[in-house]
Amino acid sequence: MVVNFLSLTLIVKFMSLINKLKKIVGANNVLSDPTELLVYECDALTTHRSLPKAVVLVSSTDQVSKTIKILNQENVPFTARGAGTGLSGGALALEGSIIIEMAKMNRVLEVNYMDRYAIVETGLININLTRRVETSGYFYAPDPSSQTACTIGGNIAENAGGPHCLKYGSTVNHILALKVVLPSGEVTMLGSQGIDTIGYDLVGLFVGSEGTFGIATEATVRLQRLPETVKTLMVDFLSTEEASRAVSSIIAAGILPSALEMMDIVTVQAIEASVFASGLPVDAAAIVIIDLDGLIVDLEVETERVKQICLNQGARSVQIARDQTERLKIWAGRKSAFGAMGRISPDLMVQDAVIPRSKLPIVLAKVYSIAKTYNLRISNVFHAGDGNLHPNISYDGRDKDEVSRVKTACREIMELCVGVGGSITGEHGVGADKIDYMSLIFSENDLKTMLSIRDCFNPKQLANPKKMIPSLRCRAY
Amino acid sequence: MVVNFLSLTLIVKFMSLINKLKKIVGANNVLSDPTELLVYECDALTTHRSLPKAVVLVSSTDQVSKTIKILNQENVPFTARGAGTGLSGGALALEGSIIIEMAKMNRVLEVNYMDRYAIVETGLININLTRRVETSGYFYAPDPSSQTACTIGGNIAENAGGPHCLKYGSTVNHILALKVVLPSGEVTMLGSQGIDTIGYDLVGLFVGSEGTFGIATEATVRLQRLPETVKTLMVDFLSTEEASRAVSSIIAAGILPSALEMMDIVTVQAIEASVFASGLPVDAAAIVIIDLDGLIVDLEVETERVKQICLNQGARSVQIARDQTERLKIWAGRKSAFGAMGRISPDLMVQDAVIPRSKLPIVLAKVYSIAKTYNLRISNVFHAGDGNLHPNISYDGRDKDEVSRVKTACREIMELCVGVGGSITGEHGVGADKIDYMSLIFSENDLKTMLSIRDCFNPKQLANPKKMIPSLRCRAY
Repeated sequence: MVVNFLSLTLIVKFMSLINKLKKIVGANNVLSDPTELLVYECDALTTHRSLPKAVVLVSSTDQVSKTIKILNQENVPFTARGAGTGLSGGALALEGSIIIEMAKMNRVLEVNYMDRYAIVETGLININLTRRVETSGYFYAPDPSSQTACTIGGNIAENAGGPHCLKYGSTVNHILALKVVLPSGEVTMLGSQGIDTIGYDLVGLFVGSEGTFGIATEATVRLQRLPETVKTLMVDFLSTEEASRAVSSIIAAGILPSALEMMDIVTVQAIEASVFASGLPVDAAAIVIIDLDGLIVDLEVETERVKQICLNQGARSVQIARDQTERLKIWAGRKSAFGAMGRISPDLMVQDAVIPRSKLPIVLAKVYSIAKTYNLRISNVFHAGDGNLHPNISYDGRDKDEVSRVKTACREIMELCVGVGGSITGEHGVGADKIDYMSLIFSENDLKTMLSIRDCFNPKQLANPKKMIPSLRCRAY
Repeated sequence: MVVNFLSLTLIVKFMSLINKLKKIVGANNVLSDPTELLVYECDALTTHRSLPKAVVLVSSTDQVSKTIKILNQENVPFTARGAGTGLSGGALALEGSIIIEMAKMNRVLEVNYMDRYAIVETGLININLTRRVETSGYFYAPDPSSQTACTIGGNIAENAGGPHCLKYGSTVNHILALKVVLPSGEVTMLGSQGIDTIGYDLVGLFVGSEGTFGIATEATVRLQRLPETVKTLMVDFLSTEEASRAVSSIIAAGILPSALEMMDIVTVQAIEASVFASGLPVDAAAIVIIDLDGLIVDLEVETERVKQICLNQGARSVQIARDQTERLKIWAGRKSAFGAMGRISPDLMVQDAVIPRSKLPIVLAKVYSIAKTYNLRISNVFHAGDGNLHPNISYDGRDKDEVSRVKTACREIMELCVGVGGSITGEHGVGADKIDYMSLIFSENDLKTMLSIRDCFNPKQLANPKKMIPSLRCRAY
């Protein structure tokens, strides 16, 4: 038997690292057995897979700091992970990364209703913050579709949106301050509890940096007052053009719905054929769901006005939910859209792009034409109010030819959206998935600037490597 | 006569630089005569003065780029200037800077109502954008008190606010994209017309960077739909505690006024003694002015509710403006507050700080006590809704002892605000004036991070030197 001394040295070194990590977080909180690691092989974008070297389950900022200090000493890259619900491969462990799992850091540390903020650990599940404060009349506004599972830390990394971001803004608008462990292991505070920033806006810079600047362990987030009431309308159209025009007309009338969503016929039919069926009309070309929130008296008038605008733009029918049960039933359909697609085919590519609202009809027509060219089934769900598209491609991951057609179609859809003045992601982030599309939007100089800013925080590129910003061939600096 | 060859060499070199600049912008557009330069010696914060070496009046991005390329070659620092209305000395020409005057770049390049944006040159005066679009039913939301004079570029540099930022957010929330001339002279685009960001949020980072990252020459800004109507209430209180509680109660009730301002008795008396007198009650301890905007039917109810809240909190009287004339009269009082102080003494130090809303009564009491200690006349104007204070000290700049007491009082006020969890500036920026206070808020590590980010854009420190971030004694990198 030939002993490979190089391998042996590496194994001994790795075992020594694992032991050091176990001393920080306890033996039970370091996973390194390949069978245990399998669940961390991918996030919700299952087309990308990569096994981490190990997983460290942390319970405090101090543990995160000590863990990262050791990884930094030994030049081992790391990736933070919350619930693994991301759709851009942002929590994928590339380059032999170790995963730092944040899910145990899920405490609400402080709630201050007077000044309207809460301090939370970033492993906290998004919905649990609202559940904690809603009986006092407050909520946390960002509401990604995965909000019952995703963590606030993951939302911060990707600057997550959600249906209600049209009115309330995406995650970045709700983060006042962050406790951050830098890639050196140092702990620092960014921002303050006030709403005004001072100095460079490092909180704004950190939110959406996709783990490449370090790990936020605590967040001071804004609490919002629950509206007195919410009205929900479900409107169906016989053409997507009319639906798109109705969306633009509502906004143009100076009305700001708290949500303004659109689904196409393929999506609606999939929902109605599934266990999530909620009585949506399966023969309409498009359905628009509108939430209006505010004071009871205000909404009576506003609801009527939105109804008239929709009818003027050619709506076939307008259904106004009479109570909370009807409201939730309409939303149950929308929220189960991605789940319902599971019936159609084993795999679903949830795409994400942004276009100017006025370009909705033309982009939609071209997306359908791309689907036809590549013989793919594409369904469309939109946060229509802010022009955020989710063209979803149903496919079978075992069919290599189909997978290849999915990839080509995705690229064409991205080029289409960029071509009309849009962008390659609205709320899912760039992650590993869209890193190659970055050059569609940014010049080499832009990317150089971003890389040099990343170097300020993450000079050794140990924090979430191979994410977000493509390496340039010649980095002259 | 002894000829000083060193001076002569410098003079020849300077004349050669001036000639190069004249070739770019034309001979009439380079000022270097000391008498012409005097007007550029300070901005609206007249306690700081420094004569620029020269002033270059630019008319295009190309001219800015060519000018900066030459300055970069010759290692000459520069400072951009719009209207010079800033209150932190941000446009002060330090370290022998040349001023690049943006006022001629004042065109509106594109207006798109469908997708709700405008592209403007940054020398455009703030109010002129609203004037251009208001007949079509739109407005540009950020409204600093100086909006009839200040430029959008200056607003971008300082992330300017204004009374209506409570509802609409400060400048950073209204900038979608920027054309920027970097300190190397290169031109780059940051951001896009979509509302979602991708990659690091460089637009958010640039806004509020106080000229230290280069000069924005064009901005794509958000247009807002004009509300159907605006209601204005003027409420007076016999104690500032009651007024503060009313402010907090309005917000706590889930009402979001478009403006929520407070003035103390000293301010009101100054206004009423001036040519700006607008019938405000001079015997009240504090006056609160509230704007509510939205649909006509909504506001009838909301106005009544706000009135009741104020009365419940001890308001002596509530006056609701019956028409636009009455509205403007109430606001004329508020908007002339700084001007009215001019009657009291030759000079006015307009301070700027932020505190948590709940700390208003305690901070206010301590500010008055500081005034008493140093025998100074302090009046207070607040954007109360977002906890943004403007304690204003009236003084005589010729009285050296008084100037010294003003400085000491300012520092104590800053320390007071920071001590209750607030910050040293809400909307005026750090500039030259508050650079020494930065260490009250930030650790040396925070400042190092900021300096390293500045170095990405501005490695030679030629763009607006000695502003915003203090140099550290030992910079080890």
